[in-house]
Amino acid sequence: MSVALVGAGPGDPGLITVKGLAYLREADVLVYDRLVAPELVAESHGLKIDRDKLTQDEVNELLVELGRDNLVVRLKGGDPFLFGRGGEEALALADAEVPFEIVPGVSSLASVPGSAGIPVTHRGVSSAVTAFAAHDVEALDAVALARAPGTLVAFMGGANARRLAQRLIEHGKPASTPAAIISRGTTEDENVVVTPLGALEDAVATPALVVIGDVVAVREALAVQRSAA
Amino acid sequence: MSVALVGAGPGDPGLITVKGLAYLREADVLVYDRLVAPELVAESHGLKIDRDKLTQDEVNELLVELGRDNLVVRLKGGDPFLFGRGGEEALALADAEVPFEIVPGVSSLASVPGSAGIPVTHRGVSSAVTAFAAHDVEALDAVALARAPGTLVAFMGGANARRLAQRLIEHGKPASTPAAIISRGTTEDENVVVTPLGALEDAVATPALVVIGDVVAVREALAVQRSAA
Repeated sequence: MSVALVGAGPGDPGLITVKGLAYLREADVLVYDRLVAPELVAESHGLKIDRDKLTQDEVNELLVELGRDNLVVRLKGGDPFLFGRGGEEALALADAEVPFEIVPGVSSLASVPGSAGIPVTHRGVSSAVTAFAAHDVEALDAVALARAPGTLVAFMGGANARRLAQRLIEHGKPASTPAAIISRGTTEDENVVVTPLGALEDAVATPALVVIGDVVAVREALAVQRSAA
Repeated sequence: MSVALVGAGPGDPGLITVKGLAYLREADVLVYDRLVAPELVAESHGLKIDRDKLTQDEVNELLVELGRDNLVVRLKGGDPFLFGRGGEEALALADAEVPFEIVPGVSSLASVPGSAGIPVTHRGVSSAVTAFAAHDVEALDAVALARAPGTLVAFMGGANARRLAQRLIEHGKPASTPAAIISRGTTEDENVVVTPLGALEDAVATPALVVIGDVVAVREALAVQRSAA
């Protein structure tokens, strides 16, 4: 049998792919992340295993063991290869010669800012975007990030957003750069705070995405008109 | 009525979202890009308009006009807000007070490299990715891109891949950096060429995505084992 590493999308259960949902409904076993929408977990009629009780090594072992004799779906938030650690699981399966497939998902990268009315690229404003993992702010190459062209999107940076802003400003990013912090994007609990980079505070809820760049200002033109429509 | 700006995903028609497909099937009018999978266009029973005969301004006008009295789906390759010019269309709709919704899609950013066995982020190798539009290589900030942390992904850079590599190397990116150029990713015509950055040639077919960084080397471990499985 085999393992499908499936991206569940950013939160809204309707944002899983058609292919991903088909696998989910067929699976003998579902191994899922805590942040995946409960509506998606409910679509599976297989054995369901919450991954959060396990270490990454244990998850890898479990996929190898179960994947030999079952159709296993490994359901991950966002996309398996964008901060999803799908590469590690794929390597473990490849090493054990268990067949596997990657079914990509809608990453939070553009969809969460988009849900808040922020296009991460926009003609005349930004034609590049740098996404980075920000759980360890002190380890970041703040020089390169402050100098990166276009929009910045920090994953896992909600709890350290204030310190992240400090480090970027220390290395030359203007404190006036528009920024947004979006908690639980694309869900009913979505919360958006827009502020200059210099006034960025830590997120009140997780998961949260931090967006930094002039594209954040596009939101006003979209949002004002949307509420008027 | 209203307009839904829907991401069609990277090529494989199974990679549209469940929500996007539902809209597509309901639409009175479908305005679609040339690169969208024909299987998806066939899902619509509405009036179908190929966008490629129109300028961007004409598309904006068309969406405003038709969106007043119809459910219009604007189907775009990848994600509407990642090099999809969705922001421009959304602004035109907002200005005209025509209600609209963004339905994100699977961007090529991680899915096309993923389909070729390349995780754009990978533990211990890369925890950041910079995606940029490369149709005008001379206009790029090559200094910042050569210095960017993690993986580089160039959109619309296939035809100028060789010159792109030259510019990055001139500004300090090592010529030995692993690179890949992937044409028609996630479709049956997918073609992958892996080479050091210094030997990168222009793509033979479009659309093509250029991936530059050490994550390209992960492919070998995944691909060798996959063919043995």
